[in-house]
Amino acid sequence: MKETSHYLTSARARRPLVHNITNYVAMNTMANVLLAVGASPAMVHAREEVAEFAAISDALTVNIGTADTAWYAAMEDAATVMARADRPWVLDPVGVGATRFRQDGCARLLALRPTVIRGNASEIMTLAGLGGAACGVDSGDGVDAAEAAARELALRTGGVVAVSGPVDFVTDGKAAFRVANGVPVMAQVTTMGCSLNGVIAAFCVGQPALEATVAALAAYGVAGEQAASNSNGPGSFFPAFLDALAALTPEALDARARVTPA
Amino acid sequence: MKETSHYLTSARARRPLVHNITNYVAMNTMANVLLAVGASPAMVHAREEVAEFAAISDALTVNIGTADTAWYAAMEDAATVMARADRPWVLDPVGVGATRFRQDGCARLLALRPTVIRGNASEIMTLAGLGGAACGVDSGDGVDAAEAAARELALRTGGVVAVSGPVDFVTDGKAAFRVANGVPVMAQVTTMGCSLNGVIAAFCVGQPALEATVAALAAYGVAGEQAASNSNGPGSFFPAFLDALAALTPEALDARARVTPA
Amino acid sequence: MKETSHYLTSARARRPLVHNITNYVAMNTMANVLLAVGASPAMVHAREEVAEFAAISDALTVNIGTADTAWYAAMEDAATVMARADRPWVLDPVGVGATRFRQDGCARLLALRPTVIRGNASEIMTLAGLGGAACGVDSGDGVDAAEAAARELALRTGGVVAVSGPVDFVTDGKAAFRVANGVPVMAQVTTMGCSLNGVIAAFCVGQPALEATVAALAAYGVAGEQAASNSNGPGSFFPAFLDALAALTPEALDARARVTPA
Repeated sequence: MKETSHYLTSARARRPLVHNITNYVAMNTMANVLLAVGASPAMVHAREEVAEFAAISDALTVNIGTADTAWYAAMEDAATVMARADRPWVLDPVGVGATRFRQDGCARLLALRPTVIRGNASEIMTLAGLGGAACGVDSGDGVDAAEAAARELALRTGGVVAVSGPVDFVTDGKAAFRVANGVPVMAQVTTMGCSLNGVIAAFCVGQPALEATVAALAAYGVAGEQAASNSNGPGSFFPAFLDALAALTPEALDARARVTPA
Repeated sequence: MKETSHYLTSARARRPLVHNITNYVAMNTMANVLLAVGASPAMVHAREEVAEFAAISDALTVNIGTADTAWYAAMEDAATVMARADRPWVLDPVGVGATRFRQDGCARLLALRPTVIRGNASEIMTLAGLGGAACGVDSGDGVDAAEAAARELALRTGGVVAVSGPVDFVTDGKAAFRVANGVPVMAQVTTMGCSLNGVIAAFCVGQPALEATVAALAAYGVAGEQAASNSNGPGSFFPAFLDALAALTPEALDARARVTPA
Repeated sequence: MKETSHYLTSARARRPLVHNITNYVAMNTMANVLLAVGASPAMVHAREEVAEFAAISDALTVNIGTADTAWYAAMEDAATVMARADRPWVLDPVGVGATRFRQDGCARLLALRPTVIRGNASEIMTLAGLGGAACGVDSGDGVDAAEAAARELALRTGGVVAVSGPVDFVTDGKAAFRVANGVPVMAQVTTMGCSLNGVIAAFCVGQPALEATVAALAAYGVAGEQAASNSNGPGSFFPAFLDALAALTPEALDARARVTPA
């Protein structure tokens, strides 16, 4: 792949409009993360307008964290628009192992062939039908355990699958990468994963999805490393993270990105 | 108009109950902004109670950012209560140019004659029917381009119209002011504009709307200037902004407010 | 009761999954507070899955701040699951005095016998039917005035009632405690009370509810005191609060907790 900074620079130059149908917990943090990375965020879910809004957007993210039946319908409407226009959309199957309702909703969304699926190991294993030990929204499985599931899911959906964890794993079913950036405190701050979906979507605009996703994970992790050294816990971490993401230079990103083929 | 601090002091002394029907992204930040300025915020949208709640409130803000049909109905219920009681209410037509659904909803809200309409240049031009290049929720037009639209919209609705930008423009269709406070980082933090609506509403309680709106914009911008000098990016800016708004003295506000007749 | 730190240590060791049906304003801050205290938060409200999710949760919190009819139904579904399983659930009757809709909804929730009810003095007095002067979501009454109401409500529901204020009052109708920790700035930050419900729920898992609630209030207040000395206003207070809560040691908690029998 090209240098990691290529995808950051591309996103900043394009300033893509990223349409998000995400959970209530994540909306504010995700909008701030997208602004910090140089994109233009919009949170739009009403079925009365969601397809019209998707049609003017450059990318879409869909997150099932607090969805009900009406929200799933809006997600399907918007994803259908993106799929037909061949524009990137990202699926986050939050806590899919927890209820049958989530599994049914994700099955419908998978059928619309997301450009990227990002989740923790348990979520990816549940999606792939391998029976991960998902419970609640935390991951009970290690990333390694989910690699085969990720490859299988990527081949089945024709998209990219990213497994978040201490070392992330990203694959399109054939090629694969590991990204070793990030810090443990990121798991103590709510919706850090949800907000990452927006960065992935922004990086994917006009770029190949596998490489753009890898670059997004690396940029996010590097900003996290910089923020950790400027904060004293999960509370002061998040403002420092936004500062670091907004100030991240291409040079710093390339110097610190820890990306390896898998 | 009176000194800018007059309106801040008035709001703090009254501690008005400000009822907000706003988008999900803004709710938390807006509540904190209202607390910092000395008001008492409440977020209430359920149609089962919204009119009853409006009836005990001193002011109302309405923001269409994430509204669906049920939320528009609640907004109309609450705005009707405020209009009949001659209490101030503020409309924020977020991204009105993006979808027909937003335009139809705003047309119904405009008919209820908001006390103040606040938006960016594109939104105000769309509302006035002049065809701004609105796309998503950012402004593609400059404030200058929207001045005639703002005057026309104010005369048509009988209210005050505020156009937010690097230099804000506020008019009741006859008199007009420019407010040159604020810093660029405010545009990199989500819902800074949405939260400002609450300050406008709080300042308008018991005060003339044109002058109170001008004062709210100035106070907000001055707090932003102070915060920018105590922060390192969009993440650390927002906590510093709340600190600055809570600590803003009448003397500092009057010394730094940059208000001129237009 | 045991030392205050006993309940903090218990919660951290169990890492309980706390299911929250809370208002939109509080969701993000509450999730971060629960993570900081060592619990695993989930916000789930869709009626299609709420009972199934409650069944895998260790505790539940219910907050009526922005509820409509569908949300009350979900709250009742989830609370029923917890009550039948004899697992703790916490009710926060936000602004119950403001509308008839809230009073009717709380009456239904009270019938499901919450493990803990936490509110300000006006809310507790309204619940107890004693006619507190509640208006909006702030408290117009002092804690002292609500003590008799709290005892009566606790006896009637068979649960614990906590009255938040400068000095908190907690009772099961027979025994009672006062907790004198906390700082005034906590009232200037939105959803500090809402987020506390999560800590109470986490502390109650596997512990007696009266003592666990007292310990939660003390831990929350001590973290607030530590944060106040590391911040400059309501904006910088909240990140400092999360840092303090995450770093709170059993020793510091026991040394600073100000708990007395009432």
